[in-house]
Amino acid sequence: MCGIVGVAGIDKAAELAYLGLYALQHRGQEAAGISAVDESGRIHLQREHGLVVEGFSDSVMATLPGRNALGHVRYSTAGGPGLVNAQPMLVRYHQGDLALVHNGNITNAVGLRSSLVREGALFQTTVDSEVIVHLIARSRAPAVEEQIIEALSQLTGAFSVMITVGDALYAARDPWGFRPLTLGRLNDGHVIASETCALDLIGATIERDLQPGEVIRIRNGAAEELTRLTGAERPAPCIFELVYFARPDSRVWGVSVDRARRAFGRQLAREQPVDADCVFSVPDSSNSAALGFAEESGIAYELGLIRNHYVGRTFIHPTQKGRDFRVRIKYNAVREVINGKRVIVVDDSLVRGTTSRGLIALIREAGAREVHFRVSSPPVTNPCYYGIDMPTREELIGAQKTVEEIREHLNVDSLGYLSLEGMHSAVASHGPFCDACFSGNYSAPLVDLEMGRRVSSHC
Amino acid sequence: MCGIVGVAGIDKAAELAYLGLYALQHRGQEAAGISAVDESGRIHLQREHGLVVEGFSDSVMATLPGRNALGHVRYSTAGGPGLVNAQPMLVRYHQGDLALVHNGNITNAVGLRSSLVREGALFQTTVDSEVIVHLIARSRAPAVEEQIIEALSQLTGAFSVMITVGDALYAARDPWGFRPLTLGRLNDGHVIASETCALDLIGATIERDLQPGEVIRIRNGAAEELTRLTGAERPAPCIFELVYFARPDSRVWGVSVDRARRAFGRQLAREQPVDADCVFSVPDSSNSAALGFAEESGIAYELGLIRNHYVGRTFIHPTQKGRDFRVRIKYNAVREVINGKRVIVVDDSLVRGTTSRGLIALIREAGAREVHFRVSSPPVTNPCYYGIDMPTREELIGAQKTVEEIREHLNVDSLGYLSLEGMHSAVASHGPFCDACFSGNYSAPLVDLEMGRRVSSHC
Amino acid sequence: MCGIVGVAGIDKAAELAYLGLYALQHRGQEAAGISAVDESGRIHLQREHGLVVEGFSDSVMATLPGRNALGHVRYSTAGGPGLVNAQPMLVRYHQGDLALVHNGNITNAVGLRSSLVREGALFQTTVDSEVIVHLIARSRAPAVEEQIIEALSQLTGAFSVMITVGDALYAARDPWGFRPLTLGRLNDGHVIASETCALDLIGATIERDLQPGEVIRIRNGAAEELTRLTGAERPAPCIFELVYFARPDSRVWGVSVDRARRAFGRQLAREQPVDADCVFSVPDSSNSAALGFAEESGIAYELGLIRNHYVGRTFIHPTQKGRDFRVRIKYNAVREVINGKRVIVVDDSLVRGTTSRGLIALIREAGAREVHFRVSSPPVTNPCYYGIDMPTREELIGAQKTVEEIREHLNVDSLGYLSLEGMHSAVASHGPFCDACFSGNYSAPLVDLEMGRRVSSHC
Amino acid sequence: MCGIVGVAGIDKAAELAYLGLYALQHRGQEAAGISAVDESGRIHLQREHGLVVEGFSDSVMATLPGRNALGHVRYSTAGGPGLVNAQPMLVRYHQGDLALVHNGNITNAVGLRSSLVREGALFQTTVDSEVIVHLIARSRAPAVEEQIIEALSQLTGAFSVMITVGDALYAARDPWGFRPLTLGRLNDGHVIASETCALDLIGATIERDLQPGEVIRIRNGAAEELTRLTGAERPAPCIFELVYFARPDSRVWGVSVDRARRAFGRQLAREQPVDADCVFSVPDSSNSAALGFAEESGIAYELGLIRNHYVGRTFIHPTQKGRDFRVRIKYNAVREVINGKRVIVVDDSLVRGTTSRGLIALIREAGAREVHFRVSSPPVTNPCYYGIDMPTREELIGAQKTVEEIREHLNVDSLGYLSLEGMHSAVASHGPFCDACFSGNYSAPLVDLEMGRRVSSHC
Repeated sequence: MCGIVGVAGIDKAAELAYLGLYALQHRGQEAAGISAVDESGRIHLQREHGLVVEGFSDSVMATLPGRNALGHVRYSTAGGPGLVNAQPMLVRYHQGDLALVHNGNITNAVGLRSSLVREGALFQTTVDSEVIVHLIARSRAPAVEEQIIEALSQLTGAFSVMITVGDALYAARDPWGFRPLTLGRLNDGHVIASETCALDLIGATIERDLQPGEVIRIRNGAAEELTRLTGAERPAPCIFELVYFARPDSRVWGVSVDRARRAFGRQLAREQPVDADCVFSVPDSSNSAALGFAEESGIAYELGLIRNHYVGRTFIHPTQKGRDFRVRIKYNAVREVINGKRVIVVDDSLVRGTTSRGLIALIREAGAREVHFRVSSPPVTNPCYYGIDMPTREELIGAQKTVEEIREHLNVDSLGYLSLEGMHSAVASHGPFCDACFSGNYSAPLVDLEMGRRVSSHC
Repeated sequence: MCGIVGVAGIDKAAELAYLGLYALQHRGQEAAGISAVDESGRIHLQREHGLVVEGFSDSVMATLPGRNALGHVRYSTAGGPGLVNAQPMLVRYHQGDLALVHNGNITNAVGLRSSLVREGALFQTTVDSEVIVHLIARSRAPAVEEQIIEALSQLTGAFSVMITVGDALYAARDPWGFRPLTLGRLNDGHVIASETCALDLIGATIERDLQPGEVIRIRNGAAEELTRLTGAERPAPCIFELVYFARPDSRVWGVSVDRARRAFGRQLAREQPVDADCVFSVPDSSNSAALGFAEESGIAYELGLIRNHYVGRTFIHPTQKGRDFRVRIKYNAVREVINGKRVIVVDDSLVRGTTSRGLIALIREAGAREVHFRVSSPPVTNPCYYGIDMPTREELIGAQKTVEEIREHLNVDSLGYLSLEGMHSAVASHGPFCDACFSGNYSAPLVDLEMGRRVSSHC
Repeated sequence: MCGIVGVAGIDKAAELAYLGLYALQHRGQEAAGISAVDESGRIHLQREHGLVVEGFSDSVMATLPGRNALGHVRYSTAGGPGLVNAQPMLVRYHQGDLALVHNGNITNAVGLRSSLVREGALFQTTVDSEVIVHLIARSRAPAVEEQIIEALSQLTGAFSVMITVGDALYAARDPWGFRPLTLGRLNDGHVIASETCALDLIGATIERDLQPGEVIRIRNGAAEELTRLTGAERPAPCIFELVYFARPDSRVWGVSVDRARRAFGRQLAREQPVDADCVFSVPDSSNSAALGFAEESGIAYELGLIRNHYVGRTFIHPTQKGRDFRVRIKYNAVREVINGKRVIVVDDSLVRGTTSRGLIALIREAGAREVHFRVSSPPVTNPCYYGIDMPTREELIGAQKTVEEIREHLNVDSLGYLSLEGMHSAVASHGPFCDACFSGNYSAPLVDLEMGRRVSSHC
Repeated sequence: MCGIVGVAGIDKAAELAYLGLYALQHRGQEAAGISAVDESGRIHLQREHGLVVEGFSDSVMATLPGRNALGHVRYSTAGGPGLVNAQPMLVRYHQGDLALVHNGNITNAVGLRSSLVREGALFQTTVDSEVIVHLIARSRAPAVEEQIIEALSQLTGAFSVMITVGDALYAARDPWGFRPLTLGRLNDGHVIASETCALDLIGATIERDLQPGEVIRIRNGAAEELTRLTGAERPAPCIFELVYFARPDSRVWGVSVDRARRAFGRQLAREQPVDADCVFSVPDSSNSAALGFAEESGIAYELGLIRNHYVGRTFIHPTQKGRDFRVRIKYNAVREVINGKRVIVVDDSLVRGTTSRGLIALIREAGAREVHFRVSSPPVTNPCYYGIDMPTREELIGAQKTVEEIREHLNVDSLGYLSLEGMHSAVASHGPFCDACFSGNYSAPLVDLEMGRRVSSHC
C-alpha cells in the first residue's frame, strides 16, 4: 500500500507535501519521497528509506524549491534494496521533466511492459508504475494532456496517480475508483491527498473526492476536468480502506472512518452476541469497532491490551525469536483487567492469524476465564490485486480453514466474524464497494494473472 | 526521568536487559545503555543516543557477553552532546570494574562533589550519579559491600540504583523509596526493573518490590539483604508515577496503574461533574482516567482525538513553526465525533498548559459546541527534585495562575481538577505518597538547593 | 577522465575488478563502481562516491558474484549529486541485463540523444554514455553482437568501452583509438584495462593493446575479433596520457610512461637550457621529467618540494581560504635545498597556472635566488573534447597569454616549454598522436559543438 | 608515535591547530583530536577516528572557539575501540578545565598508576598519559604551575607535553629530551609543534627548540621558563626521528631531516659500495637517502618503484590475502627501469623485513639481474620504550638473524647496513642521541619493565 499527496500553486510546496506524507505515514513506512518543480520546470527529487521524519532534514528540504510538489510513502520496497523502486518516479522526456506518484496496482502492467521492452524501452525499476511514464513518452500525441490520457486509457486495474510536468499537476483515478483521492484548497492553491487527514494537517479545506475515471489538470490556480476514463461497469471503491487501512480521523468514500468502524462493531455485536464481563480492542486499529461493540452490547469497554509504540523496526535478538515473541514485544496484557474474567477481544480483520494467536496466548496467561474473539469484517479469503499488500491464498487463514478450525487454532472459546452482508449494510449508503478480498468478486480484469504472467511488484 | 533494569545469573543477560529497556522506553528516549560482566569480571559497555531499538544491533549486542547485566534509558542527556553523561556508568577501581545505573536525583550531590574534587577526584560527567562511584572508590572499607553501603549512606534524596562488581549485583532504594524497583525471578536467576512491564516482557515472575532503604546483593542465585538505609521519617513513594509516568500495564506501589488511573477518573467525575454529550481522552496517557470518568458519569466514551505515533523526533520546518503546530503534528480531531457536541476532555495532568491549549483549539475547530476540560490530578505547583523532569515554578501554569485564569487561558467552558484529597483517597490503601509537585511538601531535605548550590543535572 | 577494467572468465571476477580499479584510481577519484554477472546472467551493481577502498567493503563485495565483471572510476560526477551518473551503467533490455563502462567522450552524443528522446526514449542520466545503451536496445538486429556494432558505428569521438551481456564480455575502441585499452590474460581468463598497471596488480600478463576501431567478444575463454569500426583517417592516440595522465609504471601506446617522460625531460633540457644549482620536480607527476632534465643537463637533482599525501578531500576552513593556501596545504618547500640557490622547477604541464604560481611563491619564500620554470610539454591552448577534463579556453593560461606574460604572471626568472616538435620527436616511434590540446588539430569531428549544441558531461 | 601542536593567544586557535595536525599527520593516522579554551576558561573537545581531514568538518570546528588550543594525532588507539584513549585528554579539576597532549612514553607510569588507584583514583583510560592529570589533580600545591611541575617531576621516560588551564598554555620536555618540540611565533601569539613543518603550514616563524627538561608557560603573549626538570645524565634526542619518522622538510635536532638523510645515504655509499647500473629508493621515506647514495657513488638515480597513494586503510579481500600482497597493493615496479639491470635499492631502516622481502620479489619479477639492498641505518635490534611503536625483539629481524641470514631471507645479492658509528658521524654536530633501538643503550630507566609490570599502551 502507499499514500500520495500533491500540492499545486503554493509556496514551499515541498514542505506541505512533507506534512501530507507525515499524516499518511500509516500507508507506508518503508520509503518516502518528495519531488518539487522549480520555476524553470526542472524537477528536484529526494527519496529516502524509512519514515519521512527520519529522511527529510532541513538540508534535504532546501533542495526542493517551487510551488508544485508530489509526495509518496511506500509500504514495501519490493525489488530489493536501493531506492530506485521508490517514488516519486522522475523522468526527463521530450516535453521536459515529469514526476509521477501512484497508489494502486495495474493488472495489465506486465503485458504492457513486455511490449514496450520489445520496442527498445529501457526500464529502470521493477514496479508497475513505470509503464505509465513509458506510455506517456512514446505517445505520438502533441500535447502533454493527450499523452497522459492516451497512456492512462491503456491501463487496467487500480491507480490513483498524480503527475507534474512544467507548471501543471495532473491527477487521475482509475475507472473503478479503487483507491481514494481527495481534492482540497489552501488559499489560492490546491492540495490532493489519499486521505483527508493529510489535508487536515496541511490546513487545507476539503473540496471533494475525485470521481472514478476522472482526470484533472491544475494550472494557474484552476482545477479543470480533462476527461473521464471509461471501462468500468460500476465504481468499486475498496471497502478494506474502511475496515483497516485508513486513519480513523479521515473521511473516505464519503464517510468518517471512525463512524464506519463503529457501525461495523455495532453490527458485529448484533450478529455475534456473547455473554461476557468486558470487551476490549487490539489497539489502535480496532478501537472504534470495539467501542461500537461495547455500545451495542452494553458490555463494559476496557483497556485490556497496551501497545508499545516504540517498536519501530524492532530488532529481535536470536534468543528471543519464536512464535509469540513478535506479539509480546508489541503488546502487553493488563492483568488486573483480564484476570478471572470472561473477555471479548475485537479485532478489525483476520489475515494470517499469527498475531491474533499470540495475543490470545498473552490474554490467557493474564488469567482470562473465557476468551471470545470477534472480527469486525468477514474472513479474508482472497488476495488483493488492486494495491493492498496481502499474502497468498495459502497463507490466508480464512481461505484455508473453517471458522471452527480457526477457533481451535486461535484457542478461543468462541469466534465470530461480521457477515459480508452485515458489513455492506453498515455502510450501505456509501457503496457499492469492491469486496474482492472477502468475496473473490474481482471488479477489474486480472489481465496479467489470467495470462499466466508473473506479476510485478506494486503499491 | 529514567528507567533501569538489572539481570543477575542468567545466560545472555544483556539481551534480557535489552528487552527490559524496550519495555521501559517510555521512561527515557534520549539515550540507552547496557553493561555486561564477562566471566573474568570485566565489564563491557555500550551506550547510544536515541531509542534502544535503534542503537543496539546484533553486532553491538555481540560485544556484551555474560550472565550479569545492567540497562538504563535516559530522558534527557543533560550536559550537552556526547554520551559521557549517559548510563550505565563504568569505572575501573581498585576492586575491579564497577558499573552503575541510577534513577532519581540526589539532593546533596553538589556538596559531596565539591568535597571530592577538592581532594583531587577527577569527574568525567556532570551527573549527580558520579558522586556515588567516587565515594565507593575512596572508601577505606575492605569489602565491596561495605564500600557501597558507606557511599549510599552519605546520600540524601532519590535513588534507585543497581551496581555490578565481579559476580555480584547490588540493588538499593533510598530510605524514602521515591522511585520504584521490583525484584523478579527467571528460572534460577533474578531480574530487577523500574516497572513490572519490563519483567512481563522478559518473562520473569514478579517476586516483590524492594523496600525503602533496602540494599540487597544477588550472587550465586541468591538475593540477600545487606542492610536497611535510614534517615527517612516515613516512606514517600512518588504519586506522579501513578498519575502519569508509569505504563498502565505496570503494577507500581502495589497497585495496577490502570486501576489507579480509573479510580482517579471516577473520583474526578464525582468531584467535577458536568453535563455533556461525550467524554474522550488525550491519548494515550489519559485513556484510563477518561474511561473511569465515562463509567462514573454515564456519559458516552468516544475517540475524539487521534494520535500520530510516527512523530519520533519530528522535524518541524521553519514555515510550520508556531504555537499550535507541535500539537497538530501529533494529534488530529475526529470531526464526526466532535462537531456540534458538548465534549469533556480528560487529561492526566496540566504542567505548562501549552499542549492542552493547542488541543482545545483543535477541538474547537472541529466544531465542538462546548469544551469541558478535566484533569485527573491536582494543579502542579512545585518542581520535583527527586527525579521527575519538570519545568521551573515560573513555567508551571498551576503555580502562576488561578483555576479561573487557566480556564480562560485554555479557552474552555469549564475546567475541573481532581482534588489533592480526592487523589489520595482513590489510592489510599497504597500510600502514603510523596506529593511534593502538587503540595510543596518535600519529603527529603533539599540540601544543595538550600545551600544555594547550582543543582547538577539528574535523572 | 575515467579508468575502466573488465574481467572475463575468472572466479571472483569482481575482486579482480576491485584491484584493477585500485590501480587505476589516479584516473578518477569521485566515484567507483563494479558490476558482476552471476551464473544466470543477472547483473549485480555497486556504485559508491569516493575512493574504491572506501566504498567497497567485504559485505559490498559479497553482493557481486560471478566470473565476468566490469569496473569504473570516475573523475567527476557531473550532473549533480547522486550516483545515477556513475558507471557501470546497468540496463535490463530485451536480451537481458547489460552493463557498460566507457572512457572517453562521444562528440555526437547530444544529437543522437535528441533523436532518441523524440522517439520516446527515457534517459536516466546526463552522461553521453547512455546513448550507447539506448542505441543497442533499439537496434532491430537479432543478435547482441550486431546490436552492439550497429550502436557503436553511429558514434563519433572517443570511446574505449566494455559491455557484458549474458556470458560474454565485449570490448571496443573508437576508430581513432583516443583512449588506451590493453588486453591481458590470467590463467584461462582475460583481463582488460585502461592501463597496464592494473594488469600488473591483478597479476595478469600483458597480451596486446586493442587496436583503434577493434571490437572483440570474450566468451568461453576465447577472445574473438568481431569487426573493425571505421571512420578515422588515421589513429590518434592521446599524447596527454604520456605527458600527465597515465601512471609512470604503465606502458601506454607501446612505451613506458616513465621512459617517455624521461625523454620529454631530456629534450626539454636540450631545448631550454639554463645555468642553475639544482633541478627538482613538482612531485609526483613530474618526477620522471625532472630526472630526465637533470640527467641531460648535468645539474644536480634535488627533492625541493614535499607533498602531503593525506590531503584527501581537504577541508579548507574559512580563515585559511585564499589564493595560495590550496597549494600550501598540499606542498611544502625544503628550505635547506632552496635557500640561496638558483633552482630549476620542472612541471609536466601548465593548464590554469594557479598551482604553479602558488608553488613558486612558496619556493621564493624558502629563499631561492633564481627560479627557472620548465614545462615538459607545450602550452595547453585548446580544450579536449575526447575525454580529458579541461577548463574552457578562457581559463587556459596558454591560450590567453604569451610566454613572456606567463613568465611575469608566475613571477619566475625564466620560463621554458617543450616544443610541439620536440614532444613528438621524443616519442616519435610510437605515434602519430592526437595533440589537439596543444595544437588545436582535432582528429575526430566535433559534431555537437559545430551544431551549437550544449555538450553533455563526459568522462 | 604521535604528533602534538599547541596554539596560544591567537584568534581561531583551533583552526591553526587543525592545520598543524594536518602537517603532522604522518606521525599518527588512527585518531585526531583538538581542544580549545573559550573565554570563560571552559575547554571544548573533539576527537575523531581516522585522518584529521576526515573528522573535522566546519560544523565540528565551529564548536571549538577561543585563542588557546591543543591538537594531537595518534598512531594507534591501543586499548580497543572507542575514542576514550585518544587525546587531548580533558578533565575538570579543582582549578577548572585542564587539557593535555602527550608525545612519548612514561616508563614508570604503571607503578604511579597503581599507587593512585589504591588511593581511590578512578582512571578512565588505559594510556600512560592519564597518570599526569591525576598527579596534577592530587597535588597539594596551591598554584597550577607548582601542581604541574610536581607532577612532571615524578615521571621517568619520554614526554613532550602541552597543557592548557585557564588562559595559560604549559609546554614541557622530559629531561632527556627524547621527543622534539619547537616553539614558533605568529604575530603576537605562539605556536608549538612536534615538527617545524607544522609551523611552516601555519605560517609561524621558528623561534627555537624547547630544551630537555624545560617547562614553560605562555600567557598574555609572553613565554616564560618556569623550571628545568632534572634527572638525566645527558640529553638523548631520538635519532630515529632523523632516520625515518620526521618529515624531510622539517628541521629536527637542529638539522634538516632531508640533509641528515642525504648524509646517511652518502655515508652508506662509502661504507657499502657496490657496482650496479642504477640506484632507487623505496618511496617516499628513503628518497633522500637514495639520492645521497647516488650522489656519492655516481651511480644513476632512478624511479624504480611507484607508490600508490590511494592506499588509505586498504581493504584486502580474502582471496588476495597472502605474504606479498600487502606490498603489491602499495608498490609497483617499473619494468623498463629494472629489467636486465643490476639495481641498488635503498631503504631507510629494516624492522621486521616483511615489506622489504615483498618488494624484492616484485623487483626480481620485473627482471632485475642483481639486487643489492642498502639500509641507511644500522640493524634495529631492540624495542623502543620511549614512544616509537615497534614490535617485540622476537619480531625484529635484526635481533634474530645475522646479516648474512637476513640477506638470504630477503633473497638479495648483497645487503649492507649503515654502521652505528657511520650514522652518528653523519650528524655528529647535532648529537648526542638516543640510539637504543640500534644499540640497546637505554638512556632513561625502564622502571615498570624492570619491576616486571605489564607496560601500558603509549604514544
